Amino acid sequence: MKYERVAPEEIERRSFEIITEELARRGVALPEDRAFLIKRAIHATADFDYAQTLQFSDGAIQIFAAAIRDGAVVVTDTNMALAGINKNELARYGAAARCFMAEPDVAEEARERGVTRATVGVERALALETPCVFVVGNAPTALMRLRDAFDAGARVPRVVVGVPVGFVNVEAAKEAIMETTIPYIVNVGRKGGSSVAAAICNAILYEMRKGAL
Amino acid sequence: MKYERVAPEEIERRSFEIITEELARRGVALPEDRAFLIKRAIHATADFDYAQTLQFSDGAIQIFAAAIRDGAVVVTDTNMALAGINKNELARYGAAARCFMAEPDVAEEARERGVTRATVGVERALALETPCVFVVGNAPTALMRLRDAFDAGARVPRVVVGVPVGFVNVEAAKEAIMETTIPYIVNVGRKGGSSVAAAICNAILYEMRKGAL
Repeated sequence: MKYERVAPEEIERRSFEIITEELARRGVALPEDRAFLIKRAIHATADFDYAQTLQFSDGAIQIFAAAIRDGAVVVTDTNMALAGINKNELARYGAAARCFMAEPDVAEEARERGVTRATVGVERALALETPCVFVVGNAPTALMRLRDAFDAGARVPRVVVGVPVGFVNVEAAKEAIMETTIPYIVNVGRKGGSSVAAAICNAILYEMRKGAL
Repeated sequence: MKYERVAPEEIERRSFEIITEELARRGVALPEDRAFLIKRAIHATADFDYAQTLQFSDGAIQIFAAAIRDGAVVVTDTNMALAGINKNELARYGAAARCFMAEPDVAEEARERGVTRATVGVERALALETPCVFVVGNAPTALMRLRDAFDAGARVPRVVVGVPVGFVNVEAAKEAIMETTIPYIVNVGRKGGSSVAAAICNAILYEMRKGAL
């Protein structure tokens, strides 16, 4: 086996260098203000499809950063994304992350009503007093419920990261959000997941930390 | 938007149906004894590449299941995989999951020695008294350290799930494991990650639950 000699603290920098080189070789020019985020999604997946499929409403990244600075709750639909989102960085702004999926009465209510836990989780999140942002890495039903709330004129999150992964209603649910006026970062198509969801949040948090956002 | 009407408890079944149909359309015939696992990796990523890139040493799935039945510790290198692995299923066999990455003295030791936290984590895991299996979803350095331990004749885990994602030494580290006699489930190439790592563990746990393993 042949290893590249890279010091631990240099691995991430070298990885982004390789990603940048490979994007150039593929002739992909990323929009400058979003490149940091798209590259981090590629870093988390080794999947260059994200260079083509990540879509942003105008100013969505800035709106996410502003919400964090206002101490927003990052509500996510997966415990894996919750584990991956950098809570230390959130704490710098008095922000926090929360996932309703594991709360036992959420499962109970979902079963009784014949809906997904994600649907119930969205309802609980929309009832929060604090400002919130949504980070959906798993359940298209979370996005579908959010669209319903939007259509009903209910309060909606400041911005939604919509990157559920899967095969049933995933593409339609993403489109349903992109048709609203809710600011969004969405990965069109079937791909996404907890790793991508956490990577997007962390990309913004690290850019804020650097003073670049 | 056009949603497919699928009851919450039917979403997963319908997803696997779509995956099975799409594999057939692509002319991919999965080995029967591994199909359940490969499909769950595809389910977690919506990435059909996994049908081609997941590699198994002989009997690796059975060895993983036997280790769980013996109450093994599932040692993983990422807190996201730890969050995703089904601990209730593990508990049925007296097995458990553990991640050394977040333990504060691991970070300290890594910094002092100029190695990654994953390297230190592997050393701690190899010193455990209980039988263990490794589930590597992030750090190629974990696999590299394991290869060193194997070369030195040290005790090794019963089986390793080697699915780190990334750009620096990821492919070489996977090859380094496949050259040993340690039973493995490895995703060759750059792709992998916490979602895939957790999906592989859970696929085996759910198959055990069904009595199919």
